[in-house]
Amino acid sequence: MSSLLNEKLDVLNVGLDSFADTINHTGGTAHQVDWQPPAAGDRALGFNLAKTINNEKIDAANKIAFDRYLSSQPIATGIATAKEAIKGLGERQLLHSGPPITWEKMAAPVKGAVVGAILYEGWADTPEKAFELAATDEISYAPCHHFNAVGPMAGLISPSMPVWIIKDDVHGGETYSNFNEGLGKVLRYGAYNDEVLNRLHLIADTLAPVLTRTLEQTGPIDLKPIIAQALHMGDEVHNRNVAASSLFLKKIAPAMNRSGSNSDNIATTLEYMANNDLFFLNLGMPACKTMLNAAHGVEGSTMATVMARNGVEFGIRISGLGDQWFTAPVTPAKGLFFSGYTQDDAAPDLGDSAITETAGLGGFAMAAAPAIVQFIGGTSDMARQATEEMIPISLGRNPAFTLPTLNFAGSPAGIDIRKVVDTGTAPFINTGIAHKEAGVGQIGAGITRAPMECFIKAMDAYCERYV
Amino acid sequence: MSSLLNEKLDVLNVGLDSFADTINHTGGTAHQVDWQPPAAGDRALGFNLAKTINNEKIDAANKIAFDRYLSSQPIATGIATAKEAIKGLGERQLLHSGPPITWEKMAAPVKGAVVGAILYEGWADTPEKAFELAATDEISYAPCHHFNAVGPMAGLISPSMPVWIIKDDVHGGETYSNFNEGLGKVLRYGAYNDEVLNRLHLIADTLAPVLTRTLEQTGPIDLKPIIAQALHMGDEVHNRNVAASSLFLKKIAPAMNRSGSNSDNIATTLEYMANNDLFFLNLGMPACKTMLNAAHGVEGSTMATVMARNGVEFGIRISGLGDQWFTAPVTPAKGLFFSGYTQDDAAPDLGDSAITETAGLGGFAMAAAPAIVQFIGGTSDMARQATEEMIPISLGRNPAFTLPTLNFAGSPAGIDIRKVVDTGTAPFINTGIAHKEAGVGQIGAGITRAPMECFIKAMDAYCERYV
Repeated sequence: MSSLLNEKLDVLNVGLDSFADTINHTGGTAHQVDWQPPAAGDRALGFNLAKTINNEKIDAANKIAFDRYLSSQPIATGIATAKEAIKGLGERQLLHSGPPITWEKMAAPVKGAVVGAILYEGWADTPEKAFELAATDEISYAPCHHFNAVGPMAGLISPSMPVWIIKDDVHGGETYSNFNEGLGKVLRYGAYNDEVLNRLHLIADTLAPVLTRTLEQTGPIDLKPIIAQALHMGDEVHNRNVAASSLFLKKIAPAMNRSGSNSDNIATTLEYMANNDLFFLNLGMPACKTMLNAAHGVEGSTMATVMARNGVEFGIRISGLGDQWFTAPVTPAKGLFFSGYTQDDAAPDLGDSAITETAGLGGFAMAAAPAIVQFIGGTSDMARQATEEMIPISLGRNPAFTLPTLNFAGSPAGIDIRKVVDTGTAPFINTGIAHKEAGVGQIGAGITRAPMECFIKAMDAYCERYV
Repeated sequence: MSSLLNEKLDVLNVGLDSFADTINHTGGTAHQVDWQPPAAGDRALGFNLAKTINNEKIDAANKIAFDRYLSSQPIATGIATAKEAIKGLGERQLLHSGPPITWEKMAAPVKGAVVGAILYEGWADTPEKAFELAATDEISYAPCHHFNAVGPMAGLISPSMPVWIIKDDVHGGETYSNFNEGLGKVLRYGAYNDEVLNRLHLIADTLAPVLTRTLEQTGPIDLKPIIAQALHMGDEVHNRNVAASSLFLKKIAPAMNRSGSNSDNIATTLEYMANNDLFFLNLGMPACKTMLNAAHGVEGSTMATVMARNGVEFGIRISGLGDQWFTAPVTPAKGLFFSGYTQDDAAPDLGDSAITETAGLGGFAMAAAPAIVQFIGGTSDMARQATEEMIPISLGRNPAFTLPTLNFAGSPAGIDIRKVVDTGTAPFINTGIAHKEAGVGQIGAGITRAPMECFIKAMDAYCERYV
């Protein structure tokens, strides 16, 4: 003790920065420890949480879930309309992104997409009538996730839209997604004018038949190798899909010319794909959903298998907690805006595309895609740091998804809600940003974090059931 | 002086490491300076070299050359047979890579490629007769570079082979390259069996007509944007061209289906391209040649505008020294070998593809392509270091060719022979490795350096003329 008082102070400070500042100002040295109390300071949850950490039984359950995620083999097998492909879909049912929500509470861009889907289906012939119809009980709504489907942004899937069918070649089961519309005025950002509807008809009438015949020609297409290669080519396979889309086009273009479709329709399909750097997103997302379905439903597992937003709430599901959603309000992503728009115009975070982060891509694979952080003024080191920050909250690394700038180490994957709540580190999510009003569309892109509250609620429920 | 003897030694050591080791062992600290005498210790050249460094007149000449390199706009305009496209090509003339060489002195893989080209042209009907004919003066030989052409490895271009025609949209002039054959048994590595000849006929009879019609449909294709984007997708656009090849396919596939070619030929062409990750190399190389032709011939400039190898000699040309070659013996690249082969099987370094390094790609853009160094057991940091090591010998950075892991800084470009000789740093070159015997083909890939002797000879000639 006497030596402590006689020698120059060298202090580790935990808590308020100002204590460290004082020591530094008076000639000592203080190092600020970046620490937060576990469970966000919730004493009861903290005690329960402690019982789950280094718990062999939970670790064993998570190993099963994580191994099933790793061994899943998503393959694209075909295309059909939603009403043909998706069992149980109602005749006038519309699927949307994120956790359940009613028409009244939907965010404006989702309402816009609903209106567009009603017009597309021909259930109403003007936007005004569509808005009216949407509010009646003639139309029912459900999350895409309740039907093993995923959709970016508003995520609208209506019965006659064509959907990709993805199967798990190892564990069985199917997942679905709609077709990517590209940039500009698009349904998924809440636009519903003629440009939007004409594109949806082009997808159904020209692209879907050409691509259906092409997939008959190629046979099932293995999606993980395309994702893996795209990670070596600057994509994180969420906001940046330029490599994956190019590789997919390259993979199928020859067969397209042996499938019996006419040259004009092939050319139109290839032009559409070549001009849409996000084309693969709607294949990557159900591929991720497939891998996470494999991991879902393992008794005792704390692995998150869904993260999704409906524009009002952010919801997660946990492998060991069945189909329950754990939700919290979403906040707008911070990002860069297209000319003429600001953060004030931004809708809250939206879409099922956070399924990519849940599967170890997107924000978790940011090291692969420095162009993403550059977009919001960051450096390539920040891209590596983003991936590194996700390691402590992940169950492991995915050896199939390796990252060049981390010397080809696997991407961190398998979000462990114990670790999220214990460390106070919420998962990163890369995202597009929609205008807060219906009918406008995309106004920017950025990075956000999943709300901690979802994870705390899930951990509470987990402890109630298992601890 | 007395303080020097009384205090602990802290020494900068230049020269033999052992002096520093002694100081460290006796309790002092010594820092070894990584220094080599300029001009490789050649006293007379060293004095002359000193007069050229920080010389305003030479710097001004180099600025002109470098600016012309930067402003060049290579565009792919069409395809024709070599005899149609290349002015002055003799009826029985064969072009090869690197500096001039006679049949007798050619490396075995180049001899193999000559035999294949003679068989392809139908000038002989057996390999034996082709070998005999090759040695007579009925066949004449010249470097590709003497005709503004470039070819990878053996670089063989014969009169009826189709060649890409690349124009400079800013400075005028044309450059040429043959078609990339992919991996396996290929002419450019000295193989000449039926598989090789059949592929050459497929290129001439199916690919060239389809692609000619396609380019008529697309109009000229700007190659720098494709190279720039590929650098953001893990290519260094020499040994790794997977992104560039995918982007080029994506760029032209829709137009192919509007060009009036039949579906089968389109499918065959797309399959060929989709299965050949080096397809773009033979467009990237003449694009680089175009940019460097723009920089060539500037009075007083010390910028290297050609680096090329014929399998026996490595040759360079300098902007301010006309068409003279400065040559030195080549050494085999160090690399990784395909199963069953070792360094002992390797032919010396070969090909015009070092034009990519001369233009700031390949080894100079290694930071973009960590997969290249991983291939020979290196790390992604080593990839960055390779690019950084090229900065001090370069005239500047190419703002059109930016590197993600260096925070999108431009690739170092414009090799200044003054700086190479002054620092003793020879340019890196990424390369494929051919078997030393004719007819075998590629056996590996690796990294090498241009021989310093070429640069010393060039600097000698430069000083004789200008200093």
